[in-house]
Formats: sequence, C-alpha cells, structure tokens
Amino acid sequence: MLVQGKPYRSVWLEDDEQSLTIIDQTALPYAFVTKSLHTLPEFCHAIRAMQVRGAPLIGITAAFGFAFALREGKLCANDIAVELIATRPTAINLQWAVEQVLQAVNATTSENAFSTALSLAKTLWQQDIDTCSAIGDHGLDIIKQTANDKTTVNILTHCNAGWLATVDWGTALAPIYKAHEAGLNVHVWVDETRPRNQGYLTAWELENAGIPHTVIVDNTGGHLMQHGKVDLCLVGSDRTTARGDVCNKIGTYLKALAAHDNKIPFYVALPTSTIDWSVSDGLAEIPIEQREADEVRIIHGQSHSGSNDSLQIASDNTPVANYAFDVTPAKYISGLITEKGVFGTDEMDQLSLHTHQ
Amino acid sequence: MLVQGKPYRSVWLEDDEQSLTIIDQTALPYAFVTKSLHTLPEFCHAIRAMQVRGAPLIGITAAFGFAFALREGKLCANDIAVELIATRPTAINLQWAVEQVLQAVNATTSENAFSTALSLAKTLWQQDIDTCSAIGDHGLDIIKQTANDKTTVNILTHCNAGWLATVDWGTALAPIYKAHEAGLNVHVWVDETRPRNQGYLTAWELENAGIPHTVIVDNTGGHLMQHGKVDLCLVGSDRTTARGDVCNKIGTYLKALAAHDNKIPFYVALPTSTIDWSVSDGLAEIPIEQREADEVRIIHGQSHSGSNDSLQIASDNTPVANYAFDVTPAKYISGLITEKGVFGTDEMDQLSLHTHQ
Repeated sequence: MLVQGKPYRSVWLEDDEQSLTIIDQTALPYAFVTKSLHTLPEFCHAIRAMQVRGAPLIGITAAFGFAFALREGKLCANDIAVELIATRPTAINLQWAVEQVLQAVNATTSENAFSTALSLAKTLWQQDIDTCSAIGDHGLDIIKQTANDKTTVNILTHCNAGWLATVDWGTALAPIYKAHEAGLNVHVWVDETRPRNQGYLTAWELENAGIPHTVIVDNTGGHLMQHGKVDLCLVGSDRTTARGDVCNKIGTYLKALAAHDNKIPFYVALPTSTIDWSVSDGLAEIPIEQREADEVRIIHGQSHSGSNDSLQIASDNTPVANYAFDVTPAKYISGLITEKGVFGTDEMDQLSLHTHQ
Repeated sequence: MLVQGKPYRSVWLEDDEQSLTIIDQTALPYAFVTKSLHTLPEFCHAIRAMQVRGAPLIGITAAFGFAFALREGKLCANDIAVELIATRPTAINLQWAVEQVLQAVNATTSENAFSTALSLAKTLWQQDIDTCSAIGDHGLDIIKQTANDKTTVNILTHCNAGWLATVDWGTALAPIYKAHEAGLNVHVWVDETRPRNQGYLTAWELENAGIPHTVIVDNTGGHLMQHGKVDLCLVGSDRTTARGDVCNKIGTYLKALAAHDNKIPFYVALPTSTIDWSVSDGLAEIPIEQREADEVRIIHGQSHSGSNDSLQIASDNTPVANYAFDVTPAKYISGLITEKGVFGTDEMDQLSLHTHQ
C-alpha cells in the first residue's frame, strides 16, 4: 500500500538476502522509520517490542527469523522455534508459521536447512499478500451488500488490522481498500485502541490511502451504533476457535455486544491460518496475554518540539492490570471473512472442509 | 474525605464569604492545587474547563457563582443563569441548581438577592453532603447483598463519581467508602475513562482512602466480567430520565451491555436531582455534548522531570470525534441507588412519588 504516494510492503527481504527490513511500527504515526533485522535476538526483540505487530505479520517475520537463525548456527532448530514462539504467547499464527518452518527443516538435511527455511519464509510472505487480497475481495461483497442505496458506508474498526499488520492489504482493512478502489464511498470510525493506541496506525494507513476516517476513543462506538452512525463493524482476529469464537485485541467483545444490541453486522476478517482447530471454547481455553503495566501508565506521543516523547499518566504505585486480548463468542459474529470466502460461525464445518482441502 | 490523612471537601466557602475554594481537578492526580473563585467569569471558566467536574458538584459551584455574580452586580439574574447553564449543556443538575437560585432570587427583593442566593448555595452544599451520605448507606446494602460469602467484592466503576464529583462521599463511590468503613473487603476495577482519564481521579481518591483498586483501560471490563472477576458494577449519572434511562460518561453503555451479557448487577448511584422528569426516551431526547478534538489528541501527564506536561498522540489533521456521554437504556440497569432508597427502573413511579413529596 501507499506511504506518501510510494508503494510499500510492511516487511521485505533485501536483494542480498542478508537482512529483513521492517517498518518500525513503534515510531509510527509520528515518524516513518525502517530497521534491518539480521540475528535471532533482533527478530525476537522486534516481535516482543511490537516493532512488527499484527497476527499475520509476526508469523512471517518469525519465519524469516527462523531462517536467519539457522544461518547464524548458534541454536538448533527446536530451540529457535521455542524462542520465537515465546515472544507473543497468544498469537496462534506465530506458532503456526514457526511450526511450518520447523517441519520443513526437520524434513531436510542440515546443509539445506537454511535455504529450505528461507524459501518457505518467502513463500509465506507471498501467500500472505495473496490471502489478504482474497480476503479483501470477499469482504468487498459484504460492503457492497451493506451499501445498498447508502451514499456512504460507515464502518467501525478496532485496533489495526491493516496492511501494517500483514505484508500488504491487511485483513479488516483489505475490504475497505478494495471498496475504495472500486469507487464506493466509505468512512471509517477508528477506535483509538488503548493502551497501545494502534488506532493511530489505522488512521495513518487510511490517511495515506486517501480514505475518509475519524478517530474515536474506545468508549464511543456504542453511542455511534445507537444513533445509526455505524453500518458495519469489521475487525481482525489473533486467534479463532473451531466453533468461531474470536480472540482479538481487548475491547473487541464490547463492540460486538453493541453491534448485536443495535442489529449491526459484525464481521471478522482473518486468514484461515489464524484458526486454531484444536480449540473450541475460546473463553475457557485461550490463555490471555497480560502485558506490563507501563503500557498503560506511560503514553508515547509527540512533544511540543516535535520529537517523540513519553508521559506518565499514572504514578508508579497505581496498580494497573493490562490484558491484551478478549474473546468474542461466536454467537455475536455475523460472519468470518477468509481467503476461502465468507462463512457464518454456524458454518464452521464447511470452513474446515475448505481449509483442510 | 481524606487527602493524605487530612479531611477535605471538594469545594468550600471561605469564612469571610469572599471566595469559594475549589480543588483544581485538572491538576490531579499529579498535584493537589486549590483555587479561589470570586467572579462569574472565574466560575464559568472553572466549570467549562472542568477544574470542577461531576454532575452534583458543578451544580453547587454554579449556585455559589450565581450568588457571587449578584454581588458583583454586572448582570441581571436571568443573564447570570443563562451564562452558567451554557457552560455544560448536558448537565441536568447544573440547570436544576441554577434554576433553584433564579426562582429564589426572583421571589425576593433586589437588596436581598445576594444573601438569598448565598444562603441557598450553602443549603445545597450541605444537602449534597447529606444526599451522598444517604446514597452511600443505601448502596452499602447492595454491596452487602453482593458480598454474601465472598471474601472480597470486586466492583467495576467508570469515570469518577467519587467525592471529587460531589461535595463529599460521591455517588457511585459513596457505597464503596461506606463498605470500607463497615469493614467489608472491596476491590475496585477503575476504568481509565478516555479521553479525560477521570479514572486516575478515582484511583487517587481510593489510594487516599486506603481502598484496594486496579486501573484498567476502558476496553478491559468486558473481559473481566466474562471471567467472573467483577461482582458488581457501580456508576454515576449525569442525567436520568423519567423511565430510568441513564446518560453518563461515554462508554457506560458498553459496560452495561457486558454486565447484562454476564448476569452481573449494574447499579447507578445518583441524587434524585439528576433525574429529568420531563424527558422519557434518553436516546431520542438528550442532546449529547460534543467536546473539542484536542481532548482526544492531546494527553496530559507528568514528564520525566516530574512537571505537568502534555503530548500530542494524533496529528492536527487527524479527524477526531469526541462525544462526552452516552445513554444506557433502563432495561440494562439493575437499579438506581438514590438518597431516597434503591429503585428498579420498573419502579420509577414510586421513585417519582418519593421525589416529589
């Protein structure tokens, strides 16, 4: 997608294959900074510190990290896998991507391990672009249905499930980009998404794409839905269960409840790789990552002089809890928009057939 | 209530009756600063800039402002009333308090206008303390019922409906203070309450009172309720309708939905003066105050050097909408805790009888 008119991907392998370049998302939206990753600790840090973030993207970044770590040769494949998976415990397709690489490496000779892993990482990278583009095409149908005779379709989204969270296109934002390209008028309500304020990443993406949008604090969506100002909710997913429960950024569940109360369609866009077919009851079975209190206590932004800075909004002794995700039960979800098509949460059997073909 | 062990009220008339002292709540929780108000513009600024805030407190502050403005003698009583009411358009008991003073002033001679108004303001001040104390007593019964055999009662609150929002005790926090005094173990989940982060005022109050509490971002309450970590929700109200719809800080509605979905009691604590008996359908009839975008874009906090500072988290050209309140429909409210007792929203007729006696 575009950054000031120039096309970008969120991560890319340099031509000499010596480094993966990432966009440091902790510097956005104030500054556009790229970084080169070479070593396993660099990759682990980038994932843990959320310089790369978003379920699909951290999986792909980890796959490249796996390959580069094999080239380094300091750890065996199993230990590399363990280190990478530990960086973000809730993310199912981090685990999925790492396990794919581990399997491929275990199936080849040690001389071919690096090239096998790198080749697989490249494949996953290209697949992610194709997957997200397909999600966008299927989601576009939903937006077209919602549009009906409306001059503008108002879509509410939570967190950032845009191209920054994938290699390109995004998940929840892919249908919005496709709708914009198709000439539909869309306006996006962007949840700020405390504590890390990923909504400003979404706003930055939409601004660069020229798509009308408005940022709101996370408390606002219910009020907008009560007053007919939202036609459709579109969010991403970090992990989806076999029965269609969706684990996504904390606060997603509250918006799903409000959509349900106001009879507004609530769709989740996701690559099928984020479905954990081994888990059914998301509430009972998915461990929710708790992150450090300072993510809440300390706010990052731009100072009066224009430099990146931080402020403390709660004192060190204010007790804080920081749960990163919540689970939206399947019954509140109108449908899952995947690269295989759109499926209701009552059609998981069919989706399973399509996924495991 | 206590500030570092010393008893305070949120506003008080000085002995010479030349000024009203307020706690500047925009400086909290970083600094404890008091200010003296003398003139109508000073009072209007203090209310508009939310140096005093909370439905009951702004009514009482406005009543003192009315009296002081009469002493100044620059404007007639009607014009004073108009200026004061315009400072916060949604707040029903700002209007209620101002109209009480206007009526009293109109019923007396111009020589007695000031003394009549000041005397009424003092009465309202004392009544507010008594009202909130009674709300606390009635709400204590609800907490005791909820406690049952639990060792700790976990209560979620939104915004600040504590003593800082009234003269003393608070509304939603009054039952919590009474429970703590009665030796019950309570723990309070404190919603941060973007954009103005009044949750940190609540945390400051609770810390000074020695009551266990944990701050969470506004996205978190639903997750906690799904996992049995909340026994009771207690919030305040800026304006309540004749059928029991509650207009309160933006985001209250989302928490009420989550409480309903998880069968958790959701109570609203309010003085009956915040009930607008002329309005029935809160969603259709209550105008919602929209505040400036900079409340969202600019965050106030403490810099590394310990001074009060601000940071910009969204650029000037990021579109922002900032709705201050939302309406929670009566059906999601377990009961209204008032100074007259606790009433279900299906018992508004009875509450009306008690209120208009």
